[in-house]
Amino acid sequence: MIQFSHCDPAGIVFYPQFFYILSEAKEDFLMHIGHPQHHYINKLRTGWPMVRLETDFKRPSRYGDQIDVDIEVFKLGNTSLGLEYTIRGDDGERLVANSVIVLTNLDTGKPQPIPDDLRAALTPYLKQD
Amino acid sequence: MIQFSHCDPAGIVFYPQFFYILSEAKEDFLMHIGHPQHHYINKLRTGWPMVRLETDFKRPSRYGDQIDVDIEVFKLGNTSLGLEYTIRGDDGERLVANSVIVLTNLDTGKPQPIPDDLRAALTPYLKQD
Amino acid sequence: MIQFSHCDPAGIVFYPQFFYILSEAKEDFLMHIGHPQHHYINKLRTGWPMVRLETDFKRPSRYGDQIDVDIEVFKLGNTSLGLEYTIRGDDGERLVANSVIVLTNLDTGKPQPIPDDLRAALTPYLKQD
Amino acid sequence: MIQFSHCDPAGIVFYPQFFYILSEAKEDFLMHIGHPQHHYINKLRTGWPMVRLETDFKRPSRYGDQIDVDIEVFKLGNTSLGLEYTIRGDDGERLVANSVIVLTNLDTGKPQPIPDDLRAALTPYLKQD
Repeated sequence: MIQFSHCDPAGIVFYPQFFYILSEAKEDFLMHIGHPQHHYINKLRTGWPMVRLETDFKRPSRYGDQIDVDIEVFKLGNTSLGLEYTIRGDDGERLVANSVIVLTNLDTGKPQPIPDDLRAALTPYLKQD
Repeated sequence: MIQFSHCDPAGIVFYPQFFYILSEAKEDFLMHIGHPQHHYINKLRTGWPMVRLETDFKRPSRYGDQIDVDIEVFKLGNTSLGLEYTIRGDDGERLVANSVIVLTNLDTGKPQPIPDDLRAALTPYLKQD
Repeated sequence: MIQFSHCDPAGIVFYPQFFYILSEAKEDFLMHIGHPQHHYINKLRTGWPMVRLETDFKRPSRYGDQIDVDIEVFKLGNTSLGLEYTIRGDDGERLVANSVIVLTNLDTGKPQPIPDDLRAALTPYLKQD
Repeated sequence: MIQFSHCDPAGIVFYPQFFYILSEAKEDFLMHIGHPQHHYINKLRTGWPMVRLETDFKRPSRYGDQIDVDIEVFKLGNTSLGLEYTIRGDDGERLVANSVIVLTNLDTGKPQPIPDDLRAALTPYLKQD
């Protein structure tokens, strides 16, 4: 549900708050596939900095609205991962965002190859053309 | 300066926080050209919902970094305004974002033509090709 | 679960983010007792501005931690409501916050008596001395 | 100036956002006295976790309002520092917050004595009774 804290004086979601919603959806997704982000960051010192983000805002969302967030994998590179997020309300698509994130060693700042077990866990979510 | 509150456990700016920085830069810009957003929202009940946002994250920004934010107008339509933001640090470009926002009546949700005086104030910032 | 977005470069929850967690807990509580805040704000134009907040931060919370948030009513006045929040982790109490909020007409800014049905719904949560 | 991003659907500052404003005021204050927080956190790995916070919200603040934030030191202990923040608008005091923070080694979580040079820099700001 869209929270009070997401909304602005215009009564709709303040757009940076959508990225908090997407961030939480990404955490849930990575936990769901058995690769929780907090394990990677706290234990392995690798994270997922973003390199590119494209977002289309299609319809406004208001305080109290029920929304769904879907995630698909549109790119599964050596070190990079493309995630497409779709937020839907009862009136159809509200927001579509494509992000490219790169698995990165947080101490050196260097990209890391996506490990085989994580790659295998992501593969079922690859977007079908 | 990049604030503590902008940064995440990886020690770099959490990407949605960049959009708070851009939001503040937009407010400063609109005030600078004599059309403060709070006047439009509070008095005229018109605002600037975003319809599209593209962002390239080029280099990380860390707590304590000094950054500059530049704004150029890349589109000046009938109701829509394209703003390009460039964040630079001492190592060059950190982030480039292109946003399209639409002047909108907040009560009806309908786009509004950009008034002539606002159009005139924006024109000097049109990006040169 | 404590999210990445809640935490700061010191690796612990940035304290204002706790209040986002409490805000969400309040929304869940008011919905649970059948008086969702979004109904009050969107339809009745009454909200719950805060007048006083006391918080003790007892132990740090880190990214990935599981926490529970409990809410008790410590005051049920004519127009004001005292809510005590307790956040617990697996090592005991993390945070205790006491807030006093006042039911307020958002257009006039005047306090409103808490309606009887809302008062009845809150009564079972009154803290026992 | 109160920013769009600080405000909620009720048109006033969402209370956790005040703590972002106070956080920025603290950073400005510590930089002003020659002890920038980012130096302590990034180089010395010591930070200022909060242990107690009391806040009175006296009058609402709205988008576009001009505010001042004053800081006084009400306690200067061996490891702890009490800061009192007062936010004023053109109608008088808006918010008064008292916070107690503790200089802490971020790796061990242990309190650290406030160094002599920092203590000397803070002393002129001690609140007079």
